[in-house]
Amino acid sequence: MSATPVAPLPDGVDPAWLPPSALRALGARRVRVSGEGPLVATVRGEVAAATAEHGGSLVTEGPVDLALVCAPGDPDGEAFVVRRDGTTTSVTATGGAGLLHGLHHVVRLGEAAFSGRWEPRRHAPRRAIRMLDHWDNVDVHPVMGQVERGYAGGSIFYADGAVRADLGRVAAYARLLGSIGINRVCLNNVNVHRTEARLLTDLLPDVVRLAGVFRPQGVRVHLSVSFAAPMTLGGLPTTDPLDRGVQEWWASTTAAVYAAIPDFGGYVVKADSEGQPGPFASGRDHADGANLLARALAPFGGTVFWRAFVYDHRQDWRDRSTDRARAAHDHFTPLDGGFDENVVLQVKFGPVDFQVREPVSPVVAAMPRTRLAVEFQVTQEYTGQQKHVCYLVPQWSEVLGFRPHGDGDAVAEIAHGVVAVSNVGDDPFWTGHPLAQANLFGFGRLAWDDRLAPEAVLDEWIGLTFADPAVRAPLHEVMDGSWLTYERCTAPLGVGFMVRPGHHYGPDVDGYEYTQWGTYHFADRDGVGVDRTRATGTGFTGQYPAPWRDLYESVRTCPDELLLFFHHVPYGHVLRSGTTVIQHVYDTHFAGHEEVARTARTWGALRGRVPDRTFDRVTELLAEQLRCATEWRDQVNTYFWRKSGVPDERGRRIW
Amino acid sequence: MSATPVAPLPDGVDPAWLPPSALRALGARRVRVSGEGPLVATVRGEVAAATAEHGGSLVTEGPVDLALVCAPGDPDGEAFVVRRDGTTTSVTATGGAGLLHGLHHVVRLGEAAFSGRWEPRRHAPRRAIRMLDHWDNVDVHPVMGQVERGYAGGSIFYADGAVRADLGRVAAYARLLGSIGINRVCLNNVNVHRTEARLLTDLLPDVVRLAGVFRPQGVRVHLSVSFAAPMTLGGLPTTDPLDRGVQEWWASTTAAVYAAIPDFGGYVVKADSEGQPGPFASGRDHADGANLLARALAPFGGTVFWRAFVYDHRQDWRDRSTDRARAAHDHFTPLDGGFDENVVLQVKFGPVDFQVREPVSPVVAAMPRTRLAVEFQVTQEYTGQQKHVCYLVPQWSEVLGFRPHGDGDAVAEIAHGVVAVSNVGDDPFWTGHPLAQANLFGFGRLAWDDRLAPEAVLDEWIGLTFADPAVRAPLHEVMDGSWLTYERCTAPLGVGFMVRPGHHYGPDVDGYEYTQWGTYHFADRDGVGVDRTRATGTGFTGQYPAPWRDLYESVRTCPDELLLFFHHVPYGHVLRSGTTVIQHVYDTHFAGHEEVARTARTWGALRGRVPDRTFDRVTELLAEQLRCATEWRDQVNTYFWRKSGVPDERGRRIW
Repeated sequence: MSATPVAPLPDGVDPAWLPPSALRALGARRVRVSGEGPLVATVRGEVAAATAEHGGSLVTEGPVDLALVCAPGDPDGEAFVVRRDGTTTSVTATGGAGLLHGLHHVVRLGEAAFSGRWEPRRHAPRRAIRMLDHWDNVDVHPVMGQVERGYAGGSIFYADGAVRADLGRVAAYARLLGSIGINRVCLNNVNVHRTEARLLTDLLPDVVRLAGVFRPQGVRVHLSVSFAAPMTLGGLPTTDPLDRGVQEWWASTTAAVYAAIPDFGGYVVKADSEGQPGPFASGRDHADGANLLARALAPFGGTVFWRAFVYDHRQDWRDRSTDRARAAHDHFTPLDGGFDENVVLQVKFGPVDFQVREPVSPVVAAMPRTRLAVEFQVTQEYTGQQKHVCYLVPQWSEVLGFRPHGDGDAVAEIAHGVVAVSNVGDDPFWTGHPLAQANLFGFGRLAWDDRLAPEAVLDEWIGLTFADPAVRAPLHEVMDGSWLTYERCTAPLGVGFMVRPGHHYGPDVDGYEYTQWGTYHFADRDGVGVDRTRATGTGFTGQYPAPWRDLYESVRTCPDELLLFFHHVPYGHVLRSGTTVIQHVYDTHFAGHEEVARTARTWGALRGRVPDRTFDRVTELLAEQLRCATEWRDQVNTYFWRKSGVPDERGRRIW
Repeated sequence: MSATPVAPLPDGVDPAWLPPSALRALGARRVRVSGEGPLVATVRGEVAAATAEHGGSLVTEGPVDLALVCAPGDPDGEAFVVRRDGTTTSVTATGGAGLLHGLHHVVRLGEAAFSGRWEPRRHAPRRAIRMLDHWDNVDVHPVMGQVERGYAGGSIFYADGAVRADLGRVAAYARLLGSIGINRVCLNNVNVHRTEARLLTDLLPDVVRLAGVFRPQGVRVHLSVSFAAPMTLGGLPTTDPLDRGVQEWWASTTAAVYAAIPDFGGYVVKADSEGQPGPFASGRDHADGANLLARALAPFGGTVFWRAFVYDHRQDWRDRSTDRARAAHDHFTPLDGGFDENVVLQVKFGPVDFQVREPVSPVVAAMPRTRLAVEFQVTQEYTGQQKHVCYLVPQWSEVLGFRPHGDGDAVAEIAHGVVAVSNVGDDPFWTGHPLAQANLFGFGRLAWDDRLAPEAVLDEWIGLTFADPAVRAPLHEVMDGSWLTYERCTAPLGVGFMVRPGHHYGPDVDGYEYTQWGTYHFADRDGVGVDRTRATGTGFTGQYPAPWRDLYESVRTCPDELLLFFHHVPYGHVLRSGTTVIQHVYDTHFAGHEEVARTARTWGALRGRVPDRTFDRVTELLAEQLRCATEWRDQVNTYFWRKSGVPDERGRRIW
């Protein structure tokens, strides 16, 4: 019975949520693992390591505390059943992946897995597609760096212009992903530069190596590809998706990929977006483009993830009729029904771009005949760049629970998959900010089951990561409300984008106001916000089905937190909360700052209860977060005070 | 009698103001050159080439049309006397440099040098120091590029991490500088990075080569040095200027430089400024620092150029008591009298940083016991970056003609030298924008004689550069008012800095408003400007002697163009011109845009009268300038309209 040894953690790398202590309860037991196959071997390796560490034993016969059984049935199944009979806990699955997920379920339960009585329960993922996209470049990009929008160092995949020779770190990463149920990973940036394009062809042997590292954890690899590849790599005169030569190039190139990687997941494509090539150059549409790749992948069971992030990135700020929020819906909904079955349209959760607060994208409800995936950012591009504590699971939970038709299915039920941009780099803590590991963990957990409560996921993560139970309550307090704190500190009432152009860190209230990017707040001396109503604005509210089209349309029913996303109102407008817009701006910025200060104090009491280097890193970053909260408070308040002339009701200092 | 051949122009490089046609009048004559020495050889080479080209002759006896005579006397003299006796024009000088300047004087006169009758006239430079600073890096800096604030390509001195093997381009450049009387050049950026620091030591042989190229044109070379060099290059434990070891290191290092380059000019130092090292680290002051280097240079007749550009570049925008404009005066005037004789304190012309409009720095009038040089930017950092036509000679003329005490000496008479940051790179036109050559030419001419009228200098440049006399009037129209047009298009009434942080191009009204840089406009819904009065502001007006301290202090007497530099006023404040501040903002931005549009039309009529590639380059750049003028007009007007709520009196479109 084969066992695959657990990948050792490279020196100096943080164990994240799988330190030895996390496997103590299981490791102290007598455990039997039944079945064969590569993922069962992975499970057996985990049990062997944990029992060796904690005094239990991996046995093949006799009474056991835990039986992990891979039973006949669907070998690709990801579900598992847990039950407890007398003193034996058992996990049964038909596939190795299911058994692996069951193993980690037991790990998360800890001692609770081995006590009490409970009913058998079947655990199955709520969706088959649970994916992480890496925006990693092979070469260091002169402007964007090695990991685009990466805040945790260089790439764990690439170094010195090639895939790393030593993939030990990747193996440890794959284990982390497997433990939270992530089953797909895309290896390179959606902006596909010259070297990265070649991963599809002459650099494919390196992709084979990476696929081999992810496979034992149930994770399939994908590549971002350039729509221009038939020209740039293939030497063809066109990229036209209806051109026979182009079709043949993609078919034969894809066949070569599958010959090398039989479980290859497919392609991710950013086409005709922010300068990337696409089908428009040939006068074709996105369905033509996506189907071209889908048909090359179909014979092998592959999927094309086609991003819906398409908008005019050379907008004129003077032009109030163009609304970037409308763009994805305008571009894609006419194509509903035109995409092949193995196309997944990958839609950012909000209509603009991963802001701390946006409404849910109306595209989600508007394409019933298309398979959709909702895209999140685990990487904190606009939410503190992993210098700030910002536990984002509550945001994702809110989005997945949103019901576009009022009643009826939630986003979680409509979408076929969830995808997120990874926050991982070669930083010793994986994620720059040690507490940002919780976002990676939480994304996996929520992707598996969106009905999990964000605060319960947080406690799971804390419990696994930190052995000392006294850490839980204070750390929970530090993290649980941190997304709302970040919202209070930054852009109020859904307005967004008050950041420095380019790097997206730190306040710049007018930073995007006169740019080409379509992201404006239109603040003047009388009021602020974007009129997206049908009555007097851009009509974006009309992209929603009832009841939201009407709830958003009226200032009386629009939720406060999205008011300025949908409406331009006077500073004196009274919110549903009872306060005015201008006073809300002041109050939230003062409150956000106080919350960060309190967070720093709460964290400070954890010295000695968490590893010293974790303590030191977080402490240092909290000082930076407090500095930023001060800047945000003072710059935003001063900006709106200078414009509105309305003093703070409570007479606090505004500069 | 030796003649040094004229350096041939490398292929494809524009001849600037010395095309063959510029030397036609002289070249068609019989010319005698008398005297010996390297610069006389340069003159003889020029005459030989010109007469060969245009049918004249270089003769040693017999009657001549032009006699260029190097006579006994001060061999270092830069002056010359021109006279006309009968049909012979003669230039007499005691030094080779004087003769070279006299030659180019005759070139500029053209046919007029050989006709009529006129009195003998002695021409002497108004000051001995006429210098260009290159902010060139040997290595390409990852953020600032090869030429910091350079807008004309890479460096003409350096390529591939070293001084160029082929210095042919440098020789052509030296000839251009010699022709306008520049007599000092600094070869590297004042921000001295690692490789560049080594020009002083192990890379010195390359500096020797460059000095050899400049010497025949009467130009001495200088190096920017790092104050930290005794540690970084010398391995000493300190940079303390009072430390014997440090003094000895500078003495011996400097002696080695002079052993290799006997006419080496000296050092340029940016110390304790924007992160550069300096004497503060040892608890010493700027006089201690400057004198350290001065004493190393003194035995060899060298000079240290010590920059007065010292301010707090980590200012808190909330802190209204700190005023960057005050910084140079606050730092340096207490040290007056403490600098050695061979220290030149290099003072930016304005108190802030090369804006399109600033008052003259009060330092100029405040240090009577210190040798000062005024620093300009020929490179157009804040004035269109050589994408825009902006003839800056009128600005420099205004500064040099400013009388800090009302009557009494002008800046030109107080300053011992003028220095400017070069606008030259390896662009085929030298300066990116072909018309920016006029700024380089004009700087040299004004440095020689500040009393020259900017419009006459412009006509000199046009006449030399373009053979067709029909070019003069329209090109004069394009360029003469272009500085004021640029002012109208950009920041009004002396307010400055409404540009994108970092690259300084294009509008961003609030770009610097909440930064650390000390450059704010404090616009709110009621008014705009910086209160620098003694009565209610930062007291900066008090740094000026009478009458300016009082003229600037009062809104009634402060010149309109500097009003917002000195005062915060309501938008309805009526200017001396009779219009309100807000209406002035609107009017100038509409006018500036119209002027650029007219400029483009005027230039368009020159097709066929100027070289095609010059025409094409300028035409293309004018399109960019018009695009920018539109952005400036619309962004600035919209910004102030949104803030003030005051409509344009004339009902023009504000977005």
